[in-house]
Amino acid sequence: MAKEKVILAYSGGLDTTAIIPWLKENFDYEVVCVCIDCGQEEELDGLEERAVSCGASKLYILDVVDEFCDEYVVPCVQAHAVYENKYLLGTSMARPLIAKKLVEVARKEGAVAICHGATGKGNDQIRFELGIKALAPDIKIIAAWRNDKWTLDSRESEIEYCRQHGINLPFSADSSYSRDRNLWHISHEGLELEDPALEPNYKHLLVLGKTPEDAPDVPTTVTMTFEAGVPKSVNGKEMKVSDIIRTLNKLGGENGIGIVDIVENRVVGMKSRGVYETPGGTILYEAHQQLEELILDRDTYTMKKDMGNKFADIVYEGKWFTPLREAEQAFIESTQKYVTGEVTFKLYKGNIIKAGTKSPYSLYNESIASFKTGDLYDHHDAEGFINLFGLSSKVRAMKMQEVANNK
Amino acid sequence: MAKEKVILAYSGGLDTTAIIPWLKENFDYEVVCVCIDCGQEEELDGLEERAVSCGASKLYILDVVDEFCDEYVVPCVQAHAVYENKYLLGTSMARPLIAKKLVEVARKEGAVAICHGATGKGNDQIRFELGIKALAPDIKIIAAWRNDKWTLDSRESEIEYCRQHGINLPFSADSSYSRDRNLWHISHEGLELEDPALEPNYKHLLVLGKTPEDAPDVPTTVTMTFEAGVPKSVNGKEMKVSDIIRTLNKLGGENGIGIVDIVENRVVGMKSRGVYETPGGTILYEAHQQLEELILDRDTYTMKKDMGNKFADIVYEGKWFTPLREAEQAFIESTQKYVTGEVTFKLYKGNIIKAGTKSPYSLYNESIASFKTGDLYDHHDAEGFINLFGLSSKVRAMKMQEVANNK
Amino acid sequence: MAKEKVILAYSGGLDTTAIIPWLKENFDYEVVCVCIDCGQEEELDGLEERAVSCGASKLYILDVVDEFCDEYVVPCVQAHAVYENKYLLGTSMARPLIAKKLVEVARKEGAVAICHGATGKGNDQIRFELGIKALAPDIKIIAAWRNDKWTLDSRESEIEYCRQHGINLPFSADSSYSRDRNLWHISHEGLELEDPALEPNYKHLLVLGKTPEDAPDVPTTVTMTFEAGVPKSVNGKEMKVSDIIRTLNKLGGENGIGIVDIVENRVVGMKSRGVYETPGGTILYEAHQQLEELILDRDTYTMKKDMGNKFADIVYEGKWFTPLREAEQAFIESTQKYVTGEVTFKLYKGNIIKAGTKSPYSLYNESIASFKTGDLYDHHDAEGFINLFGLSSKVRAMKMQEVANNK
Amino acid sequence: MAKEKVILAYSGGLDTTAIIPWLKENFDYEVVCVCIDCGQEEELDGLEERAVSCGASKLYILDVVDEFCDEYVVPCVQAHAVYENKYLLGTSMARPLIAKKLVEVARKEGAVAICHGATGKGNDQIRFELGIKALAPDIKIIAAWRNDKWTLDSRESEIEYCRQHGINLPFSADSSYSRDRNLWHISHEGLELEDPALEPNYKHLLVLGKTPEDAPDVPTTVTMTFEAGVPKSVNGKEMKVSDIIRTLNKLGGENGIGIVDIVENRVVGMKSRGVYETPGGTILYEAHQQLEELILDRDTYTMKKDMGNKFADIVYEGKWFTPLREAEQAFIESTQKYVTGEVTFKLYKGNIIKAGTKSPYSLYNESIASFKTGDLYDHHDAEGFINLFGLSSKVRAMKMQEVANNK
Repeated sequence: MAKEKVILAYSGGLDTTAIIPWLKENFDYEVVCVCIDCGQEEELDGLEERAVSCGASKLYILDVVDEFCDEYVVPCVQAHAVYENKYLLGTSMARPLIAKKLVEVARKEGAVAICHGATGKGNDQIRFELGIKALAPDIKIIAAWRNDKWTLDSRESEIEYCRQHGINLPFSADSSYSRDRNLWHISHEGLELEDPALEPNYKHLLVLGKTPEDAPDVPTTVTMTFEAGVPKSVNGKEMKVSDIIRTLNKLGGENGIGIVDIVENRVVGMKSRGVYETPGGTILYEAHQQLEELILDRDTYTMKKDMGNKFADIVYEGKWFTPLREAEQAFIESTQKYVTGEVTFKLYKGNIIKAGTKSPYSLYNESIASFKTGDLYDHHDAEGFINLFGLSSKVRAMKMQEVANNK
Repeated sequence: MAKEKVILAYSGGLDTTAIIPWLKENFDYEVVCVCIDCGQEEELDGLEERAVSCGASKLYILDVVDEFCDEYVVPCVQAHAVYENKYLLGTSMARPLIAKKLVEVARKEGAVAICHGATGKGNDQIRFELGIKALAPDIKIIAAWRNDKWTLDSRESEIEYCRQHGINLPFSADSSYSRDRNLWHISHEGLELEDPALEPNYKHLLVLGKTPEDAPDVPTTVTMTFEAGVPKSVNGKEMKVSDIIRTLNKLGGENGIGIVDIVENRVVGMKSRGVYETPGGTILYEAHQQLEELILDRDTYTMKKDMGNKFADIVYEGKWFTPLREAEQAFIESTQKYVTGEVTFKLYKGNIIKAGTKSPYSLYNESIASFKTGDLYDHHDAEGFINLFGLSSKVRAMKMQEVANNK
Repeated sequence: MAKEKVILAYSGGLDTTAIIPWLKENFDYEVVCVCIDCGQEEELDGLEERAVSCGASKLYILDVVDEFCDEYVVPCVQAHAVYENKYLLGTSMARPLIAKKLVEVARKEGAVAICHGATGKGNDQIRFELGIKALAPDIKIIAAWRNDKWTLDSRESEIEYCRQHGINLPFSADSSYSRDRNLWHISHEGLELEDPALEPNYKHLLVLGKTPEDAPDVPTTVTMTFEAGVPKSVNGKEMKVSDIIRTLNKLGGENGIGIVDIVENRVVGMKSRGVYETPGGTILYEAHQQLEELILDRDTYTMKKDMGNKFADIVYEGKWFTPLREAEQAFIESTQKYVTGEVTFKLYKGNIIKAGTKSPYSLYNESIASFKTGDLYDHHDAEGFINLFGLSSKVRAMKMQEVANNK
Repeated sequence: MAKEKVILAYSGGLDTTAIIPWLKENFDYEVVCVCIDCGQEEELDGLEERAVSCGASKLYILDVVDEFCDEYVVPCVQAHAVYENKYLLGTSMARPLIAKKLVEVARKEGAVAICHGATGKGNDQIRFELGIKALAPDIKIIAAWRNDKWTLDSRESEIEYCRQHGINLPFSADSSYSRDRNLWHISHEGLELEDPALEPNYKHLLVLGKTPEDAPDVPTTVTMTFEAGVPKSVNGKEMKVSDIIRTLNKLGGENGIGIVDIVENRVVGMKSRGVYETPGGTILYEAHQQLEELILDRDTYTMKKDMGNKFADIVYEGKWFTPLREAEQAFIESTQKYVTGEVTFKLYKGNIIKAGTKSPYSLYNESIASFKTGDLYDHHDAEGFINLFGLSSKVRAMKMQEVANNK
C-alpha cells in the first residue's frame, strides 16, 4: 500500500532539509516538498536535486510572485496597512499565500498532512496554520519545531542528524541573523538585535540597500502613477506591479529608504525586536498616500486610516482567509475607485520628499483654499457652521453657569 | 459712561493692527489688546507703544510658554497625536490656550466681547470661538474678517485704512507665506504651496531648520529620558519641557528633521496645502514612541494608537474644552504611568535613527524572545493557542465543506 | 421667455402648500411639485388638483416604496444601524432617496432650483441638501423656512397667506404632534414631548400600533427567513421586502413592539425629544441579529457592530451619497454572504421572545459547546491558549515585582 | 516539614468538593478552601464543616458583595458594557474579584498554588487565570478539569471518587442546567439550551424572576437617582449600591425584566448558548442611559458607546487587571462627572417604559429644540453649517461633472 503523503514547506535551508528525514523516520510519510517563490531571490537551481537526495519524493517550485503582488501586496498598499506604526507586513503578507499554495499541492497530491518549520515562538506558525485550517480543515498540520518528536535544538544537532541520515550538505553551523525575504521586504532578527539597548550593526545586516549615511549625495527624482489605487508606472514606464516593486526596491535601497528598527508585539504575547528593509514598499505606501491626500474627503480619510490599522492587525495575526479580512478589504477597495493620478518625489538619504502630486479627481480647489473669497465658499457660512459646531459646548457652559449661580 | 470693552487678540502685525481703529469706529468699544506669547520668538519690545499709539487703551503681553508646553503639548506627545498621518498639530495645540487667556483677560477687564483676526476659511476661527463659547458663553465674539463691516480685502487696503486713522507703520504691502509660529512649530501656507503640483521652495520657506540636503554630513547622537510619559532630560541634563523643546528644535532644525509637506482636510470642508516645520516635536514624538514600544502591551498599544488618532482629530477641530477631550486625555494619561526610561538616537539629514532604548518597565524579555526555549514560554502552549485562535475558522471551513457536500 | 422652474418637495400639507404661492411671488419661478411616496399611507387622491389649484404647473407622484425598502432599508437592517442605541433611522433612511428623486425630476424638467420645507432646526434640511449637493452641485437649493423672504411663523399666518393668494383649503390652525411617516416608521415630536420630564401621552400619540398594555394577552408566533442577509419570507410565505415590512408592521403594531422614547442629539448640535414607532422594523432588526448570532465569528461580529454604529451615524447625518457610506456598505454586504436561515420568535406585549434559530451556516457546534470533550476541542489547548493570551500580563507582573524588589 | 499549601476556590458543590481529595492525593498539598460570596444567595451555613470534613485544613468565607458592586458592577453600568448586544456580563464582572481574593488569601497563607474547577471549554478559566497571572505571576495555577491527573468525567464518577475518599454527601447524580449566580445575575447553560433551534423551558429555568407572560397585569412605577454616574436611591430611599441592586432585582424579577437568550462567541473560539437573568441590572443600565441621553453631548455619547463596547469585550475576556482596562475606565469615569439626576420609568411585563427624566446638567433646552426660533439658535446658522458640512460632497460632485465633461 502506498504511503500517506505529507507536504513540506521547503526552503532548501538547514532547518527544512533536516525535516525531510525526520518526517520519514517519525511518521512514515512520503514527503513532497514545496518551495514557494515569493521573490526571495535565492538560488533555486539545484533545489530539486537537493530535496530528492535528502529523501523527498519530489519538489514543486511555484513562482507566485505576481499573485503575491497583485492579490496580497496591493490590498495592503491600498489599506496603507502598517503594524504598530512601523512594520510594513512583508512576512505577514506572504504567509497566507504560501499556506494556500501548500493546500493546493496537498489536494493535488492527495496528501493528508502539511508540515512547516516555523518556530514555536513566532507569528509565522500562526499564519501558516490559520491559513491551512481555513482552507483545508481536514488536513493534519505538523509543526516540526513544536513536535515532541523533534529534539534538534541547534544547528549543530541538525547537521549531525542530517549526516546520520546520509545528508552531507555544506551547511554552516554558525547562525547569522534569522531572516525572511520576499519581493516586498527582508526581516532580520537575532544577534545584537536581541538587546533593544544596542544599535543594529547595519554594515553587516543590510541586504536590500544602504544606510542613509552611505546613500548618494544627490537626490533621485521619481514619478509614479496609480489607477484606482493600483500602481501602474514608474518614471513613465508602465509595468506590472511586481516590476514596479523591483524598480522601487532598487531606487529605494540605493537611497537608504525603508529601514525600520522596531520592538513589536507578537501575537503570541511577547515582544520581539527586528529590523526590516522595505525600500520599494516604503516608497509605494508614501506615494499612494500622497495621492489619497488629494482625493479622499475628510470622513473617508479618517475612517480609512482606522480601517488600515485594523487591516494591518488581522494580516499580522494571520487572519487572511477570514470573513473579516474580506469585509475590510471590501471597504478599502470601495475607497480606491478614484485614487488615480501622478506623484513625484525625490529620494535622498532615507527621505522621500514630495515634489508634486496631480489627480483628475483631486478635491483640492485652489479658489476655495486661497485667501481670497470665491464663489464656492462664503465667509458667512463659517459663522453659522461654528455656531452649530459649538452649540452643545455653549449650551453646556451656560448650564454650568446656571448651576453655579443656583448654589 | 465708560465705553464697553472688547478684548483683541493682538499680534502686532498689519491685520490685527488695522482691527484696532476698525473696532473703535464700528462698535464704539474701548479696545484692550492681548498678545499671547506661546514662543513665537517675535520682537515683543515696543509692542505696547504700538498698540496704544494705534488706539488701544492698553496691551497685555502674557508669556504662556510653559503652560503651553506642560498642559497642551505634553498631552499631545503622550497621545502621539498626529493629524492625517503627518501634522503634529502645532497651531491646533496653541489656539485653545490663547482662547483661555483671552477669556481670563476679558473677565479681569469686564469686557463684553472678544475679537480675533483669523480668516473665514481656516480652522483657527473655529478653535478660538469654540474655546470662547465653552469658557465664556455670554461673551460676544467678533470675527473681524467675517464681519460685514470689514471691507479691507488686501494688505494695501489695510495699510490705507490705517493711514486714514493716523497709523503710519512700516508694514510691507507684499505678502509672503502665511505663517503661524510658536515654540512647537511653524506652519507655512500660500504662494507656490497653493498648487499641490509644485514643489515647495524650501530655500525661501524654512525658518526653523535646514533641508536634509543642507544638513551636516555627520550624525548627531542624542539621549533623552522620560518619566511617566513626560520628557525630563536631554543629553543628561534635566530641563523643563519648554527647554527640552528648545534644545531639540535646535538639534532637529540643524539636521533637517521634521519638515512636512501635506494636503490636509480642514474642518470647514476644504483641502489646503501647507508645509510644517516641527523639528523638536518630531524628535519628541519619535523618542516617546520608541519607549512605548518597550513598555506597552499589545492591546494597550493598539487601542492607544486609535485613541491618539481620535485625540488628534478633536484637537484639530478646536474641541479642547470639551468632555470628550478630557475623557480621551484621561485614557492616555492612564497609559503613561510606566513610560519611563531612556532613548538614544542619531539625527542625520532628516532621519531619526534608533540607537538603543532602555526602561525598568520594559516588557521585552530576551529569554522569551530568543530562539531558545526558556522557562516562561513553552512551545507546546503555541499549539493550544493556535488551535483556539483558529477554531472558528476551522469550524467555519468544516461547515462550508458540509454545505458543499450536501448540494 | 419661459420662466425658470423650481422643483418643490410637496406633501399636500399646509406648509408645503403655502410654499407654492410664496415661490411664485418671491422668485418668479414655475413651480413643479413632486410628492414622493415612501409609504406614508396618506391620501394622495386629489393631490394633483390641489397642487395645481394652488398654483403649481404640475405634480409628480412617485411611488418609490420598493426602491426605498430594497436600496435604503435593507442595508440598514444588515448593518443593524441604530442611532444612539435606540433610533431605527426611519426618517434618515428616506431623505436621501427623496433628494435623489427630486434631482431626477429637476433634470427631466430642466429646473434650476429645488425647494423644501424642512425646518431650520432639524436634521432633514441637512439630509435633503447634502443629497442634492452630492447629486446636482449646480442646482440652487431653497430652504423656504430658512429664507429671509419667508415671514410666516405660525399655522395661522400660513393659512392667512394662502387665503390672500386664493387658496382656501380646510387646514386646521391647531397643531398636533409634528410627524414623519413612511413604510418603515412614524416619528412624533412636539406637544408634551418637548418636556423630557413628561411621560408621552401614548393614547393620543400612537399611530402604527398599541402600547404593550393594550396588546393582546396571548403571544403571536412568527417565523421568518433570510437569504444572504435579505428578508425573504414571513410565516412561510415568500414576499418582497416591502410586503414583509407591511406584514411585520401589522403584527408588531398589534403586539406593542417598537415604541421608542428618546432624547437624541441632532446633527445641528441640539438635543430633541421624540417618540418613534417602528413595529416591523424592530422585529426585522432583532430577527436578523438572531441569525447573525449563529453565523458570524467573534471578530466579524465585533467589528460589524462597530461598523453598524458608524453606518447609523452617517445615515443620520444625511451623508448617504458619499464615498464613506459606500465603503461602509461594502463592508457590511461582505459579511452578509452566509446570513441565511430561519428565525422563530414570539411577539408579546412589547417583547420579541426568541423561539429558535436555524442556519445551514451556523458556527454553533453542539459537540464543541457541550460539556463533554469531543474531537474538535481538546481541553489541553485551553492551557496553551491562556498561557499566551495572558503572557504579557504575567511578564508585566513579574517586571513590577522586580522593580519593587529593587527599591 | 509542613506541606505546601494550595488555595482552592470552593463553592460547596460536587465539583469543587471532589477536588479537595484529588489535590491531596495527586499533589500532596495542604488544601485551604476559599468561598467567595458575590451574592450567590446560597446556603453558606455549614460550609466550613463540609470543607473540613472533606479534607480541607480550613475554609475562608469572604463576603465581597459590596466590593463587587462598588468596584466591578458600577464601572460596567457607567460604561453601559454589554457583550455582543445582549449579555450584561454578570459572570465576567465577578471572576476578577474572585481571582483577587484568592490571591490575597494565598499571600496570607503563604500558598504556592491556586486551584479552580472551571471547565476547559469556558471563559471562566481564562478570567480566573489571567487575574492570577496579573496579580501573582509566581503562583502556580491548577485547573483541575484540564489536568491530566483529573479523570472524573461525570457527576457519577465524582460521587464515586468522593465516596472512595470517605466523603458521603447527598449530591444528586442528575445534572440540571449549569448555572452561575451572583447578586447581579444568574446564567443558565445546558439541557435544551444546547440546541439553538429549541425554545428555552422558561418554567423550569428561571430563578430570579417570572416571564413577561406571568408578570402582573399592572405596571410598577419606579424612580431612581444617580450622582456622578453612581446609583444613589430607589423610590426616594437612599441605599448603598448592593441594596439598590437587591431592590431592583425584586422589582425587575416580578415584572419579567432582563431575560436574555443568546448564542454568544466565547473567547476560546466556540459559540455557546445561554439564558441570562439580570432583572435589576437591566433596569440600572436603562435608567443610567436615560440620564446620559439628557447630559452627554453628541461626540461624547458616540465615543462612549464605542468605548463601552470595547470595555465589555475586555471584561468578557478576563482582562480586568490590565493597563487597558484601567485606561478605558479612566475614560468612562471622566464622562460621569455630571451624570446626576432622576429617572422615572414603569416596569410592565418585560418592558421598561420611560416616564420622565430630569437633571440639573441636562443639555436639552426646550427653547432651542422647539419649533420657534429663539435667541440661542438662528435659522440662518443652519445654512452656513450645511454649506460647510456638505462642502466636500459638493466639490467632489463638481469634480466628477468636470471629469465627465472632459471625456
